[in-house]
Amino acid sequence: MMAAKAKARARRPARRQRSDGARSRSAILDEAARLATVEGIGGLSLGRLADEVGMSKSGLFAHFGSKEELQLATIETANAIFAEQVLEPAARAASGLDRLHALLDGYLRYVEAGTFPGGCFFASVLVEVSMQPGAVRDRLVAFLEDWLGRLEGAVREAQRQGEIDKREDPAQLAFELESSLLLANTQFAVARSREPIKRARRAIERRLKEAAA
Amino acid sequence: MMAAKAKARARRPARRQRSDGARSRSAILDEAARLATVEGIGGLSLGRLADEVGMSKSGLFAHFGSKEELQLATIETANAIFAEQVLEPAARAASGLDRLHALLDGYLRYVEAGTFPGGCFFASVLVEVSMQPGAVRDRLVAFLEDWLGRLEGAVREAQRQGEIDKREDPAQLAFELESSLLLANTQFAVARSREPIKRARRAIERRLKEAAA
Repeated sequence: MMAAKAKARARRPARRQRSDGARSRSAILDEAARLATVEGIGGLSLGRLADEVGMSKSGLFAHFGSKEELQLATIETANAIFAEQVLEPAARAASGLDRLHALLDGYLRYVEAGTFPGGCFFASVLVEVSMQPGAVRDRLVAFLEDWLGRLEGAVREAQRQGEIDKREDPAQLAFELESSLLLANTQFAVARSREPIKRARRAIERRLKEAAA
Repeated sequence: MMAAKAKARARRPARRQRSDGARSRSAILDEAARLATVEGIGGLSLGRLADEVGMSKSGLFAHFGSKEELQLATIETANAIFAEQVLEPAARAASGLDRLHALLDGYLRYVEAGTFPGGCFFASVLVEVSMQPGAVRDRLVAFLEDWLGRLEGAVREAQRQGEIDKREDPAQLAFELESSLLLANTQFAVARSREPIKRARRAIERRLKEAAA
């Protein structure tokens, strides 16, 4: 019992310090990000989310003003979670190759941990809005470009440091590594099996062995 | 002018022979399949589609009865298009390795040709419904399993025929090949650039070279 209580305490985040308004805004957005990977970010209307979090639609309107503002705030919440789980640990890596491994492993862990019920938030919602021009799509495309840029940047750094063969095309190698991550995520979301995660790890290990200087 | 007329004639499909009812059902479903890759299969309500095809909701109801029936019929329409463009040409291949190449090339051509505006119908809608249990999800998961089974089956056949190394794990190799296809499709849908298609071709060529017996 004590252990369970300690765990529950450990799970309580820094946001306990925030004001009531900020705390509830943050709780609403956590729920919105989860919901977006199940029902789609297009389903995130103020009315639908009001049902989900047990608030009135007018109460939610006071927080967000419009569906698009709610969607953009939800993306920033998902982005903060992704940064904490994947990007920040990788930023502490000592070398380009270490950073590349940290980004790839971090992504697979983030998927496998069930951070969002429908798998990677960004993979899920970008497919949904890829044909719907607007601020939501633009923000998600910027996320994808930033992510691919980080993989490619880590490859270039590893090439400069003599850990990856200089003859490898960094953008091509980043494409091949990202492709394993994306399929692992999609299959994990469909089947809830660890098998695709393991397959992605094997594919990445093999490809990085070949790319070694 | 004559050339344009000849082209327009060439585009008119066999369905001209069908009855009016069958023709309009078929035209509605072609539109529904395109719409599903832009707005999602969840957006395929009878009301939404009625607006799009310029029919009354009650007219559409006479064809389909329910939103789920409409969604399932739309999937069968997309499946017939996929079979014609990708599966049937591959079925005529003379060897396992030829079949594998035909499946992979056929998929990339189907994406690149803009068969559906939002990229591969199945990749797009499966992500959307992966967390929504029901007949629509089941049908799409069955499609994915059939597709992966075809890739894996072609690998096994090529191994029996001595064209792919017997030490390759067929399911792992199928995963790696499919991963290039999926990322190419996702990036093509987002950026409308041929670059990801070229990257996927390079990745596949490289991987099949390594797997050669």
